[in-house]
Amino acid sequence: MGGDHGPGVTVPAALAALRHYASVNLILVGQRDALVSALQNQRAQESERLSIHHASQLVGMDEAPAQALRMKKDSSMRVAINLVKTGDAQACVSAGNTGALMATARFVLKTLPGIDRPAIISILPTIQGHVHVLDLGANVDCTAEQLLQFAIMGSILVSSVEDNPSPRVGLLNIGEEDIKGSETVKRAAELLRNSKVNYCGYVEGDEIYTGDMDVVICDGFVGNVALKTSEGLANMITHFMRQEFRRNILTKVVGLASLPVLKRFHRRVDPRRYNGASLAGLNGVVIKSHGGADALAFRYAIQEALNEANKHFPEQISEKLESMLVKEGAA
Amino acid sequence: MGGDHGPGVTVPAALAALRHYASVNLILVGQRDALVSALQNQRAQESERLSIHHASQLVGMDEAPAQALRMKKDSSMRVAINLVKTGDAQACVSAGNTGALMATARFVLKTLPGIDRPAIISILPTIQGHVHVLDLGANVDCTAEQLLQFAIMGSILVSSVEDNPSPRVGLLNIGEEDIKGSETVKRAAELLRNSKVNYCGYVEGDEIYTGDMDVVICDGFVGNVALKTSEGLANMITHFMRQEFRRNILTKVVGLASLPVLKRFHRRVDPRRYNGASLAGLNGVVIKSHGGADALAFRYAIQEALNEANKHFPEQISEKLESMLVKEGAA
Repeated sequence: MGGDHGPGVTVPAALAALRHYASVNLILVGQRDALVSALQNQRAQESERLSIHHASQLVGMDEAPAQALRMKKDSSMRVAINLVKTGDAQACVSAGNTGALMATARFVLKTLPGIDRPAIISILPTIQGHVHVLDLGANVDCTAEQLLQFAIMGSILVSSVEDNPSPRVGLLNIGEEDIKGSETVKRAAELLRNSKVNYCGYVEGDEIYTGDMDVVICDGFVGNVALKTSEGLANMITHFMRQEFRRNILTKVVGLASLPVLKRFHRRVDPRRYNGASLAGLNGVVIKSHGGADALAFRYAIQEALNEANKHFPEQISEKLESMLVKEGAA
Repeated sequence: MGGDHGPGVTVPAALAALRHYASVNLILVGQRDALVSALQNQRAQESERLSIHHASQLVGMDEAPAQALRMKKDSSMRVAINLVKTGDAQACVSAGNTGALMATARFVLKTLPGIDRPAIISILPTIQGHVHVLDLGANVDCTAEQLLQFAIMGSILVSSVEDNPSPRVGLLNIGEEDIKGSETVKRAAELLRNSKVNYCGYVEGDEIYTGDMDVVICDGFVGNVALKTSEGLANMITHFMRQEFRRNILTKVVGLASLPVLKRFHRRVDPRRYNGASLAGLNGVVIKSHGGADALAFRYAIQEALNEANKHFPEQISEKLESMLVKEGAA
């Protein structure tokens, strides 16, 4: 039900996912009437692969997570996560309120043993492909131990979903000052060197986009700023580019001629293709879609859920975490 | 002498600055022979407005700041800062090692009374114009009091150099999680509300580029990551755009036709125009140019030095700091 656009986006996305992924079955969780009518708008109805599970309440996009947790026990978000808990669903995808989703998921599913706090993992495009970055905002202050846990979760996600046996992990830091980085980052580097993670050292912000790493680790404050700053810059560049191509008749003609090129370019950095952040470290798969996602973007979030459920991402963390913390022979 | 390109860039930039700014006199500090020969290459020589001040040593771009401070007492960097200290120069511009420049400047010039640590201020383009952001890497961990000092220094810089009587100041934070921001950021917001700064509240990373603020405040780790991440994304976008326009004969023709538009676009975001970061909070004007700056970029750094020296930026901080810390009637 969630996100800025509600079932008008999530229902067409669900129908597209059913067409795209033959193995998936979907449960639409939310107010039955709204969902039935959204299905009718798409000339669709419930089927063997597509059911509706009624939930009477909604969590507002600006609602305080604590309040959602206490007052909205029959919200679409809560009910969907309950379905994961009971095993009736293998994953939950939501475009709703991030804070409420994280709080509810932690409360209902619990974090995995050995994981202090879940982290938000997202995929960003790079010159060479893409990179997984975490944490993107779940944890404002992180300990070195938590950063190590993030690195392990990121590694496991990439190695399982992308069949990459040894993902390169970088630790986000700054390189300008005499004493590089904070004490926490330096301690985390030490832990990473002594772990079984394929730790490749510090990276600076610009190296997120070079593609030299498969996973980049940082605390949630820094990660969120990096992500949002990137969004802001991309918006500004798009704005300026449009303005310049619309300046006069001549530039408009050139713009029209450039359209196929610009479209190809745009496809490579289209944030919709990277939609679907993973709430990693929970006892179940929960995927957060961007609140403003359109149907295409939301379908990518469903795809991410499908990948993680198929590869049993949470179970893999449980299995491998302990053995990856310390390398043989390390202190 | 400094930067990745040495006098081959700084000398032409200095000559251009002399042509552009009638009021400026420049002292080239560094190895006399190298500077004389760089001048000759430009068919120029010492004059009333352009002198050479010999310094025998160089600080390497990767040299440890502590070592530069101890061992390089006759480096071009150290000698140039000494000239500011003695009043023989009103500002120092360097493209050298940032850590060494900051350490040397702090050691020689000292921080202003009431300023715990200097901060690096840089200008970034926005949709509506530009924004001053600090700190960009001098201080990894900042207290709330230091963030307030940054806000005051940023405000004073913008109000004095840009004749903006009441610069809007935003505090960089994240908005995703239930408990917004760290304790330090929340405390800083409280101090800012009680100060005479025109504090406009929290901003997220994307709002750096919207132009709704004149000054954005953050600690040096976060600021550096935001800046570098932006550089990385801009590089990737440029790379993809080039690739798409070079894909085949047809796209190349379109690219050629688009060139004037793309050039106009590029001018609006050209990082060279924003070169010249201010080391604010010191008892003297010190400007850090990007190490890889070309002559045009370096000239912008000289222009920033000229502006700050003309407006007596350090003196203004000394005068106004105390009175801006707390608003009348505030706790």
